[in-house]
Amino acid sequence: MKNERKYMTDWLDQVAWGSDGLVPAIAQDAETNTILMMAWMNREALQLTVAQQRAVYWSRSRQKLWFKGEESSNVQTLESIHLDCDNDVILLKVKQIGGVACHTGRQHCFFKQLKNNEWVVTESVLKDPAIMYKNHER
Amino acid sequence: MKNERKYMTDWLDQVAWGSDGLVPAIAQDAETNTILMMAWMNREALQLTVAQQRAVYWSRSRQKLWFKGEESSNVQTLESIHLDCDNDVILLKVKQIGGVACHTGRQHCFFKQLKNNEWVVTESVLKDPAIMYKNHER
Repeated sequence: MKNERKYMTDWLDQVAWGSDGLVPAIAQDAETNTILMMAWMNREALQLTVAQQRAVYWSRSRQKLWFKGEESSNVQTLESIHLDCDNDVILLKVKQIGGVACHTGRQHCFFKQLKNNEWVVTESVLKDPAIMYKNHER
Repeated sequence: MKNERKYMTDWLDQVAWGSDGLVPAIAQDAETNTILMMAWMNREALQLTVAQQRAVYWSRSRQKLWFKGEESSNVQTLESIHLDCDNDVILLKVKQIGGVACHTGRQHCFFKQLKNNEWVVTESVLKDPAIMYKNHER
């Protein structure tokens, strides 16, 4: 029974958590391969992501677990979860509920592109953040 | 002239460098949207990436600039460069020369997938690392 329990969490021990207990986690749309965002996970966030089959991150600014979509409704349901060669970066393939991952109301967070020494906005706002977060702080 | 020079580097100042002077940088295959790897950049690495139109990272383990492919020949030529909403994650869309991004000889670094509480290798080795690095240390 003890061995069984250990086996159940070995995969969490195999992640090379940083000195702050975190690793970067990239969320990619499982269907289109669009990169939606990058956030951070601690051990508990990763465990919850797998247990609940939805993306759970660690918010560094708020210093608490962040159940993606808890305020915005932009939940990411889990399709598969991957680890890189150095065991220190997580990749989530997800379904993005509502089609919006970014708190600015855009499909994804990488909406600035460098053109002639300037970061130029290249993606439109699909949902008004004021409506997305109407009952919540961001 | 001074203003002109400032304009030329404003885009570098706009990146929210971490307390260690680094930000994560994701490399994505511009054609297939496959995520190849995630590494780190400091200001100089980002500047060199744009100047040389190839991926240049900061190696945390070696504590020096890492001109991707300098040893393995697996150069990444730059197609476009993107910044996220919080200005603290870079996305490079690249062409992966040789079709191999990972030092293990695989197409990309995210070759372990979680299945039934185990990280299972899901990608084949395309190039023997012993040949890839025959004249170099990894």
